[in-house]
Order: sequence, then structure tokens, then C-alpha cells
Amino acid sequence: VSKTSRVVVVGSGLVGSLLALMLKKRGAEVTLLERRTDPRAAGYVGGRSINLALSDRGLLALRAAGIADAVAAVSVAMPSRLIHDKQSQVSRFAYGLHGEAIHSVSRGGLNIRLLDLLDEHGVDVKFGWRCSDVALDVPRVHALDAAGAAHVVDADVVIGCDGAFSQVRQAMRKTDRFDDEQTFLAHGYKELHIQTAPSWDVDGLHIWPRQSHMLIALPNLDRSFTCTLFFPFEGTPSFASLHDVAAARRYFEETFPDALAHVPDFDAQWKNNPVSSLVTVRCYPWSRFGKTMILGDAAHAIVPFFGQGMNCGFEDCRVLVELLDAHDDDWSRAMPAFERARKENADAIATFALENFVEMRDKIADPAFQLRRRVEAAVARVCEKDFTPSYTMVTFRPQLPYADALRQARKQDAILDELLKHEAVRRNPQSDDHNDLYRKTVAAAAC
Amino acid sequence: VSKTSRVVVVGSGLVGSLLALMLKKRGAEVTLLERRTDPRAAGYVGGRSINLALSDRGLLALRAAGIADAVAAVSVAMPSRLIHDKQSQVSRFAYGLHGEAIHSVSRGGLNIRLLDLLDEHGVDVKFGWRCSDVALDVPRVHALDAAGAAHVVDADVVIGCDGAFSQVRQAMRKTDRFDDEQTFLAHGYKELHIQTAPSWDVDGLHIWPRQSHMLIALPNLDRSFTCTLFFPFEGTPSFASLHDVAAARRYFEETFPDALAHVPDFDAQWKNNPVSSLVTVRCYPWSRFGKTMILGDAAHAIVPFFGQGMNCGFEDCRVLVELLDAHDDDWSRAMPAFERARKENADAIATFALENFVEMRDKIADPAFQLRRRVEAAVARVCEKDFTPSYTMVTFRPQLPYADALRQARKQDAILDELLKHEAVRRNPQSDDHNDLYRKTVAAAAC
Repeated sequence: VSKTSRVVVVGSGLVGSLLALMLKKRGAEVTLLERRTDPRAAGYVGGRSINLALSDRGLLALRAAGIADAVAAVSVAMPSRLIHDKQSQVSRFAYGLHGEAIHSVSRGGLNIRLLDLLDEHGVDVKFGWRCSDVALDVPRVHALDAAGAAHVVDADVVIGCDGAFSQVRQAMRKTDRFDDEQTFLAHGYKELHIQTAPSWDVDGLHIWPRQSHMLIALPNLDRSFTCTLFFPFEGTPSFASLHDVAAARRYFEETFPDALAHVPDFDAQWKNNPVSSLVTVRCYPWSRFGKTMILGDAAHAIVPFFGQGMNCGFEDCRVLVELLDAHDDDWSRAMPAFERARKENADAIATFALENFVEMRDKIADPAFQLRRRVEAAVARVCEKDFTPSYTMVTFRPQLPYADALRQARKQDAILDELLKHEAVRRNPQSDDHNDLYRKTVAAAAC
Repeated sequence: VSKTSRVVVVGSGLVGSLLALMLKKRGAEVTLLERRTDPRAAGYVGGRSINLALSDRGLLALRAAGIADAVAAVSVAMPSRLIHDKQSQVSRFAYGLHGEAIHSVSRGGLNIRLLDLLDEHGVDVKFGWRCSDVALDVPRVHALDAAGAAHVVDADVVIGCDGAFSQVRQAMRKTDRFDDEQTFLAHGYKELHIQTAPSWDVDGLHIWPRQSHMLIALPNLDRSFTCTLFFPFEGTPSFASLHDVAAARRYFEETFPDALAHVPDFDAQWKNNPVSSLVTVRCYPWSRFGKTMILGDAAHAIVPFFGQGMNCGFEDCRVLVELLDAHDDDWSRAMPAFERARKENADAIATFALENFVEMRDKIADPAFQLRRRVEAAVARVCEKDFTPSYTMVTFRPQLPYADALRQARKQDAILDELLKHEAVRRNPQSDDHNDLYRKTVAAAAC
């Protein structure tokens, strides 16, 4: 096995495209198979892709691929959450302790940028080729082209980056002892586009938390916003309970009046934009025979509430390339090393993402939770080395594995529980009077 | 919809055969599709089917189908566990408080008996027909016959009883929001047949508990035994660590000497009998469109350590028929009622089965555990109405839902924890001196 391996990547989404580019840059012969048509010719199929928040883990991988600048140019910095209450009052909460930002990017725009880079580097991308099966041990991909003609693609290595409902994972399911789980949320989502909302700041992620559900809006480069409603499928209120457009409009009037004001074509959008579901995928192992593997959503799809799906997938690419370096490009050793190293991190970010949904839609508007966050920030300021808010660990500490962040977050939760028992802390978390208490409590928990 | 529905059942294993018979008896037109050839012509494919323990839940369903007597005639009663230690000493432990027995049956023999009954009742069984896809909403089954010819079978209702790797569930996976999980144990199993072991009692289930693993043996009608080794795939010892037959034989000499003595053809059997894996399946929902459903292992495969897989599947059949009665044979109402009623019970027996593996292979030989069992029996004797050992609830209380049994078992575990704190109880659990304490503790827990 050498750097000049013939690699077939299945799926030219964000992760597949980035991986293909990174492997090509280090000398592999890469073929990329994509079920869909070329988005540059056909126009990107939108209407159901949440705008993405690119953060430091994703950027670290893009930097490793040498393309961070190209991507930064098409993103909008969001240093804050902007919380809209029912009275249309907006409050601002910083994401980081020092003004750090996450970055709104258009999935379609970023994907097209990556495809252009693939062209520049001479990667062979076959659009309209649907992977129908994979012989994992050969390895060999069976594919049907747009005209329905059958093709067989042999390679040294096959990598499935084909998303939550991966065809490559499907082939792995047929092998013995393949653990596999797909779990759907009781919530779905619907996108609404806002052409212009002059009164809204563009330097933040807008959130309308409403306990059982929420609306969010991410700014685009042209100052438009992509809104997403996360809403239960069943119950009251739910997509099922809003029987028609008029009912949906009434619900928005009561619940999101300042958002509705900026959607003049609400009725048409509500009717035409689909409701999509949200799935978590957990499986193991992620490779077979040292020849075929899956990564990104194909191996560990998560819900979008920590803004880490793409970032985690990009991190996969970075880690895989590092392991290829470490194992002299021996894929049969790099693949098991990769799945062993990454599995607990994928599980951890899946947990973070599920928990953050509750935080975003419900707790964030709760005074007790806001107090907790203030205490967290105060402790983090005093004990900078030993205590880092979990949002910061996940989003702004790209070298810290997700699983370590989760373990640390659990410890810190216990510390906050402890500190919140003190009335003086609750009254004024930021007071320097507590610095000793904060230091002692954090130090005690470290033992 | 009426009793004369056209029903297609996929899979003529134990559950599919029983369900087809029950539906036919109440007036449906039933077609049964079976991937394998007729076992009566070809000989049953053994070597990897654990002997089955039929118990009261299965018997209750067979009675509802009017065939309990026919089955009882081909089973061997096992009122006890017979525990073999490393010195080949055997200890007897009763399963029930009053001599209740479970019943060893041959999977193949029972299946053939059911197929004969299907013939008698005029059910159309198509052997060698492999279900390749299901149009869930029509409903319609696409199948390939033994010659490879494609068939389309339309029906009013399609029911998948096609096992843990169900093709019908596979079709359901392609619909939105279908939760699905398959999880494998780190242990596999290998069968060994013992032609004769004159010194062994035939009225019990033999167990060689060895902490990380175990051997079991179930008696057959002809006084032969079917042995099954449950053993880790990896680690030491494991199927992987026993590199060849000689190593396996040495391991048996040390660990299961009295069993090895009765397997003169050990080398051939070790080499020829496959190692199979053990899977738990959890999914939901179990029906789509009120027209297609799954039950038995297809919906909720479990590991075999509580002897409840078949019993639970037979109970599915009984409950489904009761719900058809309750809903005037309206399948579109009976199906959702069935999945709502059964899901928590399937989850509960899956949990019981996983936990019982640890008990059988490890705890059962542990003095602390045996003491706990003695306390349990003593409390059950004193508080007969309010305290029932969990083995009894699962195995000998066929009207008690599994989920209720699990909730009750958790409560009783806490009661036993409490009672085992008393030194006098630990010294002599059966003493009547404790009767008041037992009654008071049980009564307090009921509040």
C-alpha cells in the first residue's frame, strides 16, 4: 500500500469532498462517486439543509487541507447568540469568553467551493452515479449511472462518506457483528427563507426558544437569513396540530411575531418547504477487511443542535490523514486505529448534540439556567486553566477530543451544582469575594 | 376488513408458523412464504439452533391455538437447573417455588410439527420463496422462487416473522422515522451434540458456569443432549485464543471435563460446527400504514439466556389475535394497538435476557448470589402475594406482562438489598424468626 493508492470515495457532500481533496493532495488516485447531479450545473437543491455553523474543529481540518482562507471568505462570523423573546425583545449572549465566533456558511456554497477545488486538483468526480452495493473485501463498488447503466469500480480502498443513510454502511450491516442504530427525534424541522430583516444584527445566531420547540435564524453573506423551525411531529403544538397554512400563520403570529413580519411569502413557504426528520446514527466498527470504511454522517450522524456535524466530519478527515501519516499509509492499520480513536468522540458529540437541543429550546430562556451560565463564566475566569465552559471546549478547543470534553463537562456540572448551593454565589456570581471558593472547589474536584 | 382477509406471512419459523395457523383457524386466507426448503423433505438444518426451553407463556399461546397437547408430547420437562462445577460435582436448583418446570423442545421437531398442522388446515406454504422487497402500503411482497423467477404477492395484510435480520423490517427502515438498532454480544456460541450421557439426569437444564463464559446442555427426548458453549469471540480465553482443535480440547479437559468425556467426536464437532453470533434487535414502530407489520424476532430479537425468545414470539401471536378480536378484525387499529401494548414488554424481556447471561455464567456459582436467592425464596414463601422471584414472574406467570415483571423485579431487588443488611437474615434466611421483618419490609416497599 502506498500514497498512490486508488481510493474510491462514495458521496461528494462536504465530508466526502474534503476527504477526496486531502487524499488527492497527498498523492492518491481518487475517484469520487456522487448520486446527485452536479450542483454547479443544476443549482443546489436547498429547502432542507440547515445553514451550517463552521467552528474551530472544522477550520483546523480546512487549514490542514490548505483551504481555510478560501472558506473563510464565504462565511459570516457569529460571536453571539441573539435570543428573541415573545415580546420581540432581543438579548445577546457571547459564545466565548474572549469574543470567539462561529461562522455561518451555506452548505451549498461551501460544497460548490470544494467541488471547484477538486476540479483544480484533477479529482475524477462522477455525478449521477448511485452506489448500489459494495463488495467490502475486494473492495469494489457497484454503481448505476444516470442512464441506468451498471458500472463496477475497483480500488485499493473504498470510503463511504454517503451520509446518515449510507449505502456503504448498508453493505457493512450484512456482515456479522455489525452494531448499528438509527434513532429519530420526535421533532422535525422546516426551513423558511428571509430575504431581508434590516433590524436584525447579522453578527449572531438568532434563537426563539419556546420550551418544547424553537426557531433559529443564521445570517447569510447577502444579509438574508435562513430560518429553521424545530417543532414536534405530534402533540400540541406540532406539525400535525397545525392543520393548514392559516393555523401555522396564526401560530407564528402568537409565537414568533418578529420573525413572521419578515416572511411576506410565509404561506407559500410553509406549504412548499418539506418537513424533515432528525436522526442520530451510532454504529461499530467503521471498517471491514482494512479495505472499506465509513466516516462522517455515514458512521455517526448527529442532530444539529451543537453545530458540530460538519465540524466533526471534517475532524474525521484530519485525524484519518494524520493516522495514515503515522502508519506509513498502511490503510489496513490506519482504519482500525481510526475507528478505535474516533468512536468514543463520535459518541460524545452525539450526546452533547442531543443535550444541547434541550438547552437551546428550553433552558436558555430560564433564569435559573442563565444564573448557572453566569456562575460558569465567573469560575472559568478565575480558574482559567482548570475550568472551561463545555460550549468553549466543544467549539473553540479543536485539539481537545470530544470525549475528554464530555468527561470534563460532567465534572464541571458537579462543581456548578456545588457552588450554586451558596446563596452569596447565587446573588452575585461575578464578585471577587468568591474567587477563593471557586479555586478551592475546582481544585477539590480535580483530586 | 374481515376475518377473511388475505394475509401473507413471511417466514415459516416457529412464530410465523404458529401465527399462520392461528389466523387460518379464525378464517383468514393465509399464504406463508419461506426462504428455505421444506425441512421435512431436506432434513432440518441444525448445528446452530440452540435447543429451546418452552415455558408457560409459550404454552398459553399454544393452548390458545389449540395445539398445546401436541407439543407437550414432544418435550422434556426440566424442573431444575443442574450446576456442574470444575470438579464435576453437580448441584440441583429448582426453577420454581412449587416444582414448576420449563420444557426442552427441539426447534426442528417443533417447527415440523407446526408445518404438518399448517398442511392439515390448508395453509398455502411456498418453500424456497425469498422475499426480496415489500411495498408496505399496498401491501405487496416481491419474492424470488427457488428457480430465481420473480413473483408478486398481493394481500390485505403482510406480516414479517422473518427473524432478526428481517427483510420486512429492512423495507420499513427505508421509511421515515423508523428507529432501529441491532447490537451484538461480545460472545458467540458453538453447539456440540452428546449422543448419550447415562450418568446425567434428564430432568434439568445442565449449566457449567465459568464466569466469563458457560456451557449448557438441554436433554432431548431420546436422552441425548444438545450442548452449547457461550464463549467470547476475542480475549483470553476465547474462540480466537483457542487456535486449533487441540487447544480447544485441552481447554475442555481443564474446564468441562465431565462434558468432554461424553463427546467422543469432539475434534470433528469443534471443527465442523460453526460459531454463531448473538444479537439484540430493538426497533419501532412495528407496523406501517395499518397494512404491514413485523413480530417475533423480526421486531425484537433477544439473546437466549432467559429462554424467552420463542415464548415471547408465541405470546406476540396470542396478543395479536386477542387484539384482532377486540378491534373487530380491523387490522388498521389492531396493528398500532399491538405495537403500543407490546413494545415495553419486548424491551423488558430484552433487558432480562441480557442480565440473565451474567447470572447464568457468573453469579449462579457465587456464594453471595446463592445466599441472595435463598433470601428471595424465603421472602416469597412468607409474602406469597406481594413478592415473586423474577424467574418465576417471567417464566411461570404467563398473564403478567414482562414490563410489569421488570418493574416489580427492580423493587424486589431493593427489598433484598435491604434485608441482606441484617446479619441474622444472612445467617439463616429460612428462619421463621424473620417473617415479621420480611412482611414489614415488603409492605413498606409497596407504599
